[in-house]
Amino acid sequence: MYSGLLTDKYELTMLSAALRAGTAERRSTFELFARRLPDGRRYGVVAGTGRFLEALPEFRFDDDACESLAEFLDRDTLGYLRDFRFRGDVDGYAEGELYFPNSPVLSVHGSFAECVLLETLALSIFNHDTAVASAAARMVSAAEGRPLMDMGSRRTHEQAAVAAARAAYIAGFAASSNLDAHRRYGVPTEGTSAHAFTLLHTGPDGPDEPAAFAAQVDALGVGTTLLVDTYDVSTGVDNAVAVAGTGLGAVRIDSGDLGVLARQVRAQLDRLGATGTRIVVSGDLDEFAVAGLRAEPVDSYGVGTSLVTGSGAPTANMVYKLVEVDGMPVEKRSARKESHGGRKAALRLSRPTGTITEEIVHPAGQPVESNDPSRVLTVPLARHGEAVADTDLSSARKLVASGLRSLPWEGLMLSHGDPAIHTTQIPARRP
Amino acid sequence: MYSGLLTDKYELTMLSAALRAGTAERRSTFELFARRLPDGRRYGVVAGTGRFLEALPEFRFDDDACESLAEFLDRDTLGYLRDFRFRGDVDGYAEGELYFPNSPVLSVHGSFAECVLLETLALSIFNHDTAVASAAARMVSAAEGRPLMDMGSRRTHEQAAVAAARAAYIAGFAASSNLDAHRRYGVPTEGTSAHAFTLLHTGPDGPDEPAAFAAQVDALGVGTTLLVDTYDVSTGVDNAVAVAGTGLGAVRIDSGDLGVLARQVRAQLDRLGATGTRIVVSGDLDEFAVAGLRAEPVDSYGVGTSLVTGSGAPTANMVYKLVEVDGMPVEKRSARKESHGGRKAALRLSRPTGTITEEIVHPAGQPVESNDPSRVLTVPLARHGEAVADTDLSSARKLVASGLRSLPWEGLMLSHGDPAIHTTQIPARRP
Repeated sequence: MYSGLLTDKYELTMLSAALRAGTAERRSTFELFARRLPDGRRYGVVAGTGRFLEALPEFRFDDDACESLAEFLDRDTLGYLRDFRFRGDVDGYAEGELYFPNSPVLSVHGSFAECVLLETLALSIFNHDTAVASAAARMVSAAEGRPLMDMGSRRTHEQAAVAAARAAYIAGFAASSNLDAHRRYGVPTEGTSAHAFTLLHTGPDGPDEPAAFAAQVDALGVGTTLLVDTYDVSTGVDNAVAVAGTGLGAVRIDSGDLGVLARQVRAQLDRLGATGTRIVVSGDLDEFAVAGLRAEPVDSYGVGTSLVTGSGAPTANMVYKLVEVDGMPVEKRSARKESHGGRKAALRLSRPTGTITEEIVHPAGQPVESNDPSRVLTVPLARHGEAVADTDLSSARKLVASGLRSLPWEGLMLSHGDPAIHTTQIPARRP
Repeated sequence: MYSGLLTDKYELTMLSAALRAGTAERRSTFELFARRLPDGRRYGVVAGTGRFLEALPEFRFDDDACESLAEFLDRDTLGYLRDFRFRGDVDGYAEGELYFPNSPVLSVHGSFAECVLLETLALSIFNHDTAVASAAARMVSAAEGRPLMDMGSRRTHEQAAVAAARAAYIAGFAASSNLDAHRRYGVPTEGTSAHAFTLLHTGPDGPDEPAAFAAQVDALGVGTTLLVDTYDVSTGVDNAVAVAGTGLGAVRIDSGDLGVLARQVRAQLDRLGATGTRIVVSGDLDEFAVAGLRAEPVDSYGVGTSLVTGSGAPTANMVYKLVEVDGMPVEKRSARKESHGGRKAALRLSRPTGTITEEIVHPAGQPVESNDPSRVLTVPLARHGEAVADTDLSSARKLVASGLRSLPWEGLMLSHGDPAIHTTQIPARRP
C-alpha cells in the first residue's frame, strides 16, 4: 500500500551521500507547514494525519523495491533501506484542526536518514488531503446545515478519490459515493441513479422513463432517489410520483438552472402530494453555487469536481523543511522564502466567547504565557514510529465543526481575503 | 491494485435494479468523451489508456469487497459480482493521441451490467491522466527541445503522483523524480538534492556548504547536480566549482528571478571555466514560465505543482455515457448538454503537408469518404476483456510528438483560444 518507492529519487541519493559522509544519523527535526494559504483563503483544515500515521509502519523497502533501486544505489544504502522502518517521533496538529500560514502542522524527529525519507510521502498525503478538506469545509459552511455528498470520485485519480472522500467526510460532508472509502475508513455511502439507467429502458417505441423508475423502485424501495432530468424534468417528476407514490424518498436534478428547477419541482411535488419527497441537486456545484442555492427548496447537494480538485486550490502547497540538526536551528536564507529555524510548537488564543484571535508559534519547550484563554495545538502523534494519536474520523469531524464555530465571522466569508487570524512567530533563541 | 470498490455506489444499485428487471444483459455501448476542452485550451492529449487496459482484468470483487457490499446489496447482485470480470470489447483512441471536443476517446461494448460497472474507474483514470498529459504537452512545446523533469510527486496524492509521472513522460517529459513510476512503468528517473542536505552540514561554526557539496560529489560523482541557492547563489556556485571542479554536471537554482539568476550563473560558471556545467531551474514553473525562460541560458526545467495539477485544469471533465442499447441509439435530451446517440468512430483529415484540418466523428460502421489525406483514430483496444493494443509508453510518446507536429501553428499558442481544429459530428441514421 505505501511502498517506500512512493518517493523522490533525490531522497535516496541524499541518504547515500549522508551515509558515506557519516551525517546520516544526526538528530534532525523536519517541519511540514504552508508558507501561505491558497490565494484568498481565510483558513485551512488539516487532513491526512491519520493516513500518514497509518502509512508509517508500511513505508518499507521490500525486495522488489530494492531490486529497482539497485540500478543506482550503492550496497550500503541498499542495506540501510532493507532494514528501514521509521522509528522516530512525530508531533503536530490533530487531524481536523484549522491551520494558518506557518502553522507547524507536523514536526518529525529522528535521524536525518529516517526523516528525509518521509519527505515526499508526508507532503503527498497532506497536500492532497488538506486541499480537499479545506475546500470541503467552505462548502459545508456555505450549506448551512443541509447535507452534502461527495460524488467526485470520477474526476480524480482512482486512489486519490478514496482519500478525497475521507477528507470531505472529516470536513463535514454527510456521505460519499465512493465504496472503497466506506470499506477502508467507514465513510457513509450514498447513491442515486445515472442517466444511463433511464436510457437503458428504451424500447422499439422509444424511451420508457416509467419503466426505469419502476425497476429502480422495485429493487431499492420507494425511499430511493430518482433522477428526473434525463428527458424533461416536469414529466420526470410526474413519472416519478406516479411510479413510486407520494412516499418517494427524493428526486435528483443534475442539469439546468438548479435554483429555478428546484422551486418548480418543489411546487410540483407538493401539488402531487409528495410533500415529504426531498430534492437533491448536483452538477458543477462549488461553494459559491451551494451558497447561492440557500434560499431555494434544496434538501441536499451532490458535489464532484470542485470538491476533489480543491475548488481552485488542488494542492495545499505545504513544504517539509529541515529546521534543527543536533539541537541547532537551521534555515535556508532567501529573501523570498523566509523560514525560521528550530523545532516549534503552537497554541491558539481566543476570547472568552470562544472566538479565536491569534495563533502563536513558538520554540518547542519554551511555552508562552498569555492572559487570554488558549489551547495547545501541538500534540504527540507518533512515538518510536508508532501512532499514539486518536485517528478516529469522528474526532476529526468534531474538531473541524468546532474550528468553524471558533472563527471570527469574517473568517467564514467565501470572498477572497486575508487569513482569519494573525500568526505570531517567536524565533528560537540562538544557543 | 484495482479493486472493484473503486467505484460509486450507484453503479451497484443500478446493477441490482437491472438484474431484477431483466435488463442487465442488454447489449450496450458507453462512450467516454469530453464535451469541451478545459477553458481556452486548443488541444488535449489522451492518457490513461494503458492504465485502463491494465486495470480491466484486475477490476474484480473479492471476498473482502463482497462482504462490505453485503451491507446494502441483495444476494443475486453479490453473486453476479463474485463472478464478475469484464469480458466486453473496447475501441478508442490510442494513448498519446490528440483529442478535441466530442472525440470518442473510448467506446466500451458489452452487457449493460459489465459496462456500467466500469464507469467510475474509466473516468478516474482518463480524467486524471489526460489532465496531466495535456498540461505537460504544453510545457514540452514551450520548452522547445530543452528537457523537462517531473518533480511534482509531493504536490499530489501519493498514487496519483505515479500516474502523473507516467502521463508526463508520455507527453514528452524526459524524466521524473518518482521512483515507483520507474519500477511500474519504466519512466526514467532523475534527482538532484534538497536544501535539507545542505542544511544538514551545519556545525558549531555555522553552515558549511562546501562540506555538503563534497559529501554529495563523493557519493554521486562530479556529474551530479548541486543545489546552489540555499544561502547565496554566487557563493554557492563558487563553492560548487571549487569542490567538484570544472567537470561539474549541473547546478540547480530553485528560487528567485530564475531568468536573471540563470544569466548570472552562466557567466560565473564560464568565468570559472565550468563551461560544460548545465543549469537546471525549478520553482513554481508552468508552461508560461517555461516559455518565458526560452531566451535564457537554461539547460533543463524541473516542474512540480503546475504539472500534477494540470496547470489550472486538474481534471479533463470527460464523461461516460450510454449511447446505444440493443442496436438503438439513445441520448439524454437537454438543451445544454447535447449528446449524440449511437456507437461512433472518428478520423482526422490533414493537408498533404501533414497539418491537420478537421476531425470527423461518424457512426461506427458507416465510414466517411474524403479526398483529403486522413487517418483513422478509432482502433481496437480490448477484445473479450483482454488488451489487444500496444501499451508501450514509447509508442504513446511518439504519438504525442507527431500529434504536436501536426497541429496548425495557432494550435500551439499558449494563450486562450478555440480548439485547433473543428470537429464535425455526423449523426446516426435512425433505424
